Amino acid sequence: MYHHVKQLMYTVRVDAPDPRFGTMLLEQFGGANGELAAAMQYSVQGINCDDPERKDLLMDIGTEELSHLEVIGVLTRMHLKPMKSNRSAAEADPLIAICGGGGVNLYNSMGSAWTADYLKITGEMDVDLRSNIAAESRAKITYERLMGFTDDKGTLDALQFLMTREITHMKAFTAALESLGKPEFSIGKLPPTPGVVDQYFNDSTGHGDRGEFDARGPWNQGGSWEFVPAPAFKQFRSAETGEREPIKLNGK
Amino acid sequence: MYHHVKQLMYTVRVDAPDPRFGTMLLEQFGGANGELAAAMQYSVQGINCDDPERKDLLMDIGTEELSHLEVIGVLTRMHLKPMKSNRSAAEADPLIAICGGGGVNLYNSMGSAWTADYLKITGEMDVDLRSNIAAESRAKITYERLMGFTDDKGTLDALQFLMTREITHMKAFTAALESLGKPEFSIGKLPPTPGVVDQYFNDSTGHGDRGEFDARGPWNQGGSWEFVPAPAFKQFRSAETGEREPIKLNGK
Amino acid sequence: MYHHVKQLMYTVRVDAPDPRFGTMLLEQFGGANGELAAAMQYSVQGINCDDPERKDLLMDIGTEELSHLEVIGVLTRMHLKPMKSNRSAAEADPLIAICGGGGVNLYNSMGSAWTADYLKITGEMDVDLRSNIAAESRAKITYERLMGFTDDKGTLDALQFLMTREITHMKAFTAALESLGKPEFSIGKLPPTPGVVDQYFNDSTGHGDRGEFDARGPWNQGGSWEFVPAPAFKQFRSAETGEREPIKLNGK
Amino acid sequence: MYHHVKQLMYTVRVDAPDPRFGTMLLEQFGGANGELAAAMQYSVQGINCDDPERKDLLMDIGTEELSHLEVIGVLTRMHLKPMKSNRSAAEADPLIAICGGGGVNLYNSMGSAWTADYLKITGEMDVDLRSNIAAESRAKITYERLMGFTDDKGTLDALQFLMTREITHMKAFTAALESLGKPEFSIGKLPPTPGVVDQYFNDSTGHGDRGEFDARGPWNQGGSWEFVPAPAFKQFRSAETGEREPIKLNGK
Amino acid sequence: MYHHVKQLMYTVRVDAPDPRFGTMLLEQFGGANGELAAAMQYSVQGINCDDPERKDLLMDIGTEELSHLEVIGVLTRMHLKPMKSNRSAAEADPLIAICGGGGVNLYNSMGSAWTADYLKITGEMDVDLRSNIAAESRAKITYERLMGFTDDKGTLDALQFLMTREITHMKAFTAALESLGKPEFSIGKLPPTPGVVDQYFNDSTGHGDRGEFDARGPWNQGGSWEFVPAPAFKQFRSAETGEREPIKLNGK
Amino acid sequence: MYHHVKQLMYTVRVDAPDPRFGTMLLEQFGGANGELAAAMQYSVQGINCDDPERKDLLMDIGTEELSHLEVIGVLTRMHLKPMKSNRSAAEADPLIAICGGGGVNLYNSMGSAWTADYLKITGEMDVDLRSNIAAESRAKITYERLMGFTDDKGTLDALQFLMTREITHMKAFTAALESLGKPEFSIGKLPPTPGVVDQYFNDSTGHGDRGEFDARGPWNQGGSWEFVPAPAFKQFRSAETGEREPIKLNGK
Repeated sequence: MYHHVKQLMYTVRVDAPDPRFGTMLLEQFGGANGELAAAMQYSVQGINCDDPERKDLLMDIGTEELSHLEVIGVLTRMHLKPMKSNRSAAEADPLIAICGGGGVNLYNSMGSAWTADYLKITGEMDVDLRSNIAAESRAKITYERLMGFTDDKGTLDALQFLMTREITHMKAFTAALESLGKPEFSIGKLPPTPGVVDQYFNDSTGHGDRGEFDARGPWNQGGSWEFVPAPAFKQFRSAETGEREPIKLNGK
Repeated sequence: MYHHVKQLMYTVRVDAPDPRFGTMLLEQFGGANGELAAAMQYSVQGINCDDPERKDLLMDIGTEELSHLEVIGVLTRMHLKPMKSNRSAAEADPLIAICGGGGVNLYNSMGSAWTADYLKITGEMDVDLRSNIAAESRAKITYERLMGFTDDKGTLDALQFLMTREITHMKAFTAALESLGKPEFSIGKLPPTPGVVDQYFNDSTGHGDRGEFDARGPWNQGGSWEFVPAPAFKQFRSAETGEREPIKLNGK
Repeated sequence: MYHHVKQLMYTVRVDAPDPRFGTMLLEQFGGANGELAAAMQYSVQGINCDDPERKDLLMDIGTEELSHLEVIGVLTRMHLKPMKSNRSAAEADPLIAICGGGGVNLYNSMGSAWTADYLKITGEMDVDLRSNIAAESRAKITYERLMGFTDDKGTLDALQFLMTREITHMKAFTAALESLGKPEFSIGKLPPTPGVVDQYFNDSTGHGDRGEFDARGPWNQGGSWEFVPAPAFKQFRSAETGEREPIKLNGK
Repeated sequence: MYHHVKQLMYTVRVDAPDPRFGTMLLEQFGGANGELAAAMQYSVQGINCDDPERKDLLMDIGTEELSHLEVIGVLTRMHLKPMKSNRSAAEADPLIAICGGGGVNLYNSMGSAWTADYLKITGEMDVDLRSNIAAESRAKITYERLMGFTDDKGTLDALQFLMTREITHMKAFTAALESLGKPEFSIGKLPPTPGVVDQYFNDSTGHGDRGEFDARGPWNQGGSWEFVPAPAFKQFRSAETGEREPIKLNGK
Repeated sequence: MYHHVKQLMYTVRVDAPDPRFGTMLLEQFGGANGELAAAMQYSVQGINCDDPERKDLLMDIGTEELSHLEVIGVLTRMHLKPMKSNRSAAEADPLIAICGGGGVNLYNSMGSAWTADYLKITGEMDVDLRSNIAAESRAKITYERLMGFTDDKGTLDALQFLMTREITHMKAFTAALESLGKPEFSIGKLPPTPGVVDQYFNDSTGHGDRGEFDARGPWNQGGSWEFVPAPAFKQFRSAETGEREPIKLNGK
Repeated sequence: MYHHVKQLMYTVRVDAPDPRFGTMLLEQFGGANGELAAAMQYSVQGINCDDPERKDLLMDIGTEELSHLEVIGVLTRMHLKPMKSNRSAAEADPLIAICGGGGVNLYNSMGSAWTADYLKITGEMDVDLRSNIAAESRAKITYERLMGFTDDKGTLDALQFLMTREITHMKAFTAALESLGKPEFSIGKLPPTPGVVDQYFNDSTGHGDRGEFDARGPWNQGGSWEFVPAPAFKQFRSAETGEREPIKLNGK
């Protein structure tokens, strides 16, 4: 059960409304990495969760994101308000101006309606936590970029608060994942096929015009890695290596 | 530049076509966590990437996912084929039966068209790698669940291969993230606000009818965590604590 | 600011999980007339609202709908749970079964992702209230139809509660609209063109095979109504009436 | 069966093409409250309707909306035409300029494709009429706002006609609803639960920074209303009231 | 301006309602190749068209498609009607059953809302005519497949009529395209680059497990065709051919 | 199986980045007629195709389109890059600027996410080839229009190459269609109804204000055409012709 108190989680002040910046802010109201996406991802994961401890975590943060949705909504509304009557402002987002009368709506910065396709919900606790860690990192960078496009002090202040909270959540989700004590790279119950799991397929080769090259690093060498050069056209390397047949990836 | 060789990356065999299982397989052809989503997420990240080493990684795996898309497409096509003329099979997915003539298309298991809204692409290397690690974990669990719904040996064989490769990619993306050498929880350049970043907001409280309770764990206690009990209605706790004012989250 | 308490707004009990009925229930979780749509429509209207009295009303009901979302989510989850491992159950909604592991997600009963395109938000108080009255009437009939498809007592009990609340909200929104004291059919500030506003265009004529006919009623006769017979082809009636020119709708 | 006559329902004249205003007009061609939405909502309701009198009404107005779609389409086309070759004009809506060659298409003012998710069709006559009344009020305010963003006399003239007709339709739908003679707040057949239906849940409380307060009005007091203060956290009020348990909303 | 007459363009009779076939029919009501798509594609092309002769053609056929939309709507409605109260029927399409009360709506056979993304409208007459020819061929095959899934005589009769008309339209659009007298493969005004335009890139090579091979035919040999073997990995063929450098596709 | 080589299919050079032109280019990266749409339409058709010769064609061109996707992606990225930090550039497409950090993503020029609803895939070889011919003609005109909005020599050079290849593909698909040797207007197996197939319905009549008239041409006269004047309101012509009944289109 939810309750709403009228005080915002963070005081919002706008010194100079900037409608074009308001359309940018919509990204965090109704956009792919925005607050509704966060609130719904965690809350719905929470409804599905059978682990009462992490369910509590999901509901705590899911609820906080609803409060963030309200904060960013009020802030954005302040920036968008001139759109109702100012033609030049309205041109920045006619959907907000004409359909919404200068009010916020669950659209992103380019007017696309929010969709649950943004959400990543699997009902597998460790997988969901990984999706949440990634989601928080995306939300953080989004706030940081928004801060690069405004000088309004009141706005910067609120964005700094919201950006900070994403890091808080990232830490909490990481701790919750670690507390599960699962071995690294162990997802679900079925084990991967030994051997195949350690093969790195070098599917992109050669040099490009802007410095692209065929790189090696800890992601394809060392440890248990087996480097498989260009699986698809092994037959074309035959003149060099004497092999005649394409490689059999599945041992047949 | 891409080249296609007609041999599949993994030999596909279906012993008994199962159209209803075929609709489930569509999830990995045209679904949210499927192979096109993986191929596009990594390849587009690769196009945007200015770090030539990780760009190579993204193109390697992005290209491998295209080969997976082909494998799952051929496998799914074998299961769906009876839909073209069999009424009972057609009822499982009329869109495939009637519009597609029993062929695959980029729809998920419930007939929703694939959309780029599934993708997570930010142009921030460490953030993208986190999104990819999460994406691979989702793809792995999806393959595992599919394997729970079929007994067809040829199908299981191909799904085991594809499932295994997701773990391979998860390992590679994790190594690439670690090789960046970034401090934990450091995203972008702007630092979070000290103090606020360590506050855990206990926004969901009380007990529920199915064992829900207010939990503590490493995600909200120990280390630098400060536990903030029920920020929203601190004023209602005033009778108990003697406080009169709602808490000021922003120090004002 | 929001707070969540773990007790549900209404106790939920399912006597016999029915996965196919669970997919129907998704309509009220992530569907066009469902609880998220209601919660978001009213809450976002509330954020935009400058009239503090009706803003309070919108936040009251918007928040209650979040609690309903939770109730219907928990109820639906109970019905869908067998989908995770039961193949026959999974066939009813492979998206829930395979991607969601038998958990709820913000999809409707046919697997379409929730979209903000469902919402009607204009920032014009009387218009928004009319949209809300209509929305509540749709939600009511949806619950009633769901009740016609189950015999499960616990489920019926919860649906009866939720259905009842839609009527409560319909009453409240109607009272709020009436309290504005606006003349009937007065929307916004610009008056309609006298004369034209009273013309009823009889754009569909003749008889059909299943009893269709050209009807008259208080919506096109009596009061100030002027009945305009078949505007589009008045020229074809010329042989009968002696007129030669098509009617000029705009007085030119 | 439909017939088209080439004369427009309303003569359209544009004195000075204004491409950026043209993108705004698209809202009423392919937008959520636009003419296609109206035409389809009423016409599809009409196809489903078993009441021949109101079916005729729905087909009359549904057909008129098709004629409006044509009027707004021709008007919008005149404003958008310079986009085909003028770079500055094209920047306002590259989708129209490059894909459409400066012609109209069923996109809204921000380039989102028209979707049937905009429609409200339930097959319940009184519910559909309420949805239509609300839809007409939204269309009216949309036209009014468009009129606030142009000085072009020919354009204003056509918009005034279209705006007027929305009020006409609102009147007709209202008369049709009243002629059903249904008791107020009676939707469908199942009655709401007495008592619960009269409870107003005060789910949003306290004061906000911009004058928000906890309001009373005819929507929550007087008549049969029972005011329920803050259902969710009644347990937190216990220190004040001596109660120890959260309120039981369902009498259990 | 449009006018509607209540008689259908084709008499509709259903001998035995078949709700699951009804969901299939929705494909031609609200699906990608259905009648609304046809009506809108041609009518909107017509609004944009500056060539009065072909504009008349587009409006003629666009209007006929509206009449088809009505025919398929009435037919589909007859098949879907049992969904309102029959649980087993409702399971075939809960969205129609519960939201729509067993009435049609602009969704396809899998419940996806109609979207203008289905439309192909460019404002270039010859291009639009090609899109229309292709659209009619798709609609024809869709009707044919539907006819393969029913034995109901009344239904087959109506579908045969509608299927026939698609061929009529295909003929008309083809005649209109030919009457433009444009040289083959001449689109727009800018000429393609000589030489490059005749190169066939053999980007898929080798043999596959199910009889795939590297084919030659009039689409890549004879006439002016120049066959370019495997552009992407010409460098790998170097061992065989003595070439050292990848081919320069752009002559640099 | 796919392989990627790092050299682009066509060398890309941008002399002066132009972010607003970059948003236009997105149309061919993630838009309806763009390179991903082409790559997916042909490749998925190829997976479904049982005719090994045309399957090879579909895979050849489908793979080339992937290489085009990469070329247009790199080119667009060069134009969009300033969006990451330049506020004025960012205003052209906040979604790219803020969510994508100035990188490309699979959105069109107005920020709508790419969707498989753009694709036309039926599993009927001749129908698919017609869809492909039309698709290539749309892609050609799109490139031509883009070339009209830039003076950047490097950009024009790459666009000329890509535009040329669309004509190449159009030629190849046309040859493949002709090589099937199917009679004209023969789609699928069921024949159209003789007589009805030759009737041209004159569903749009009269004169319009901008030169519209009721045209005759090879699409409705000559050959086997039977011209049916205004089917819908034949009853209204009764005063002129003495007929009393509406025409029976279906001979009943």
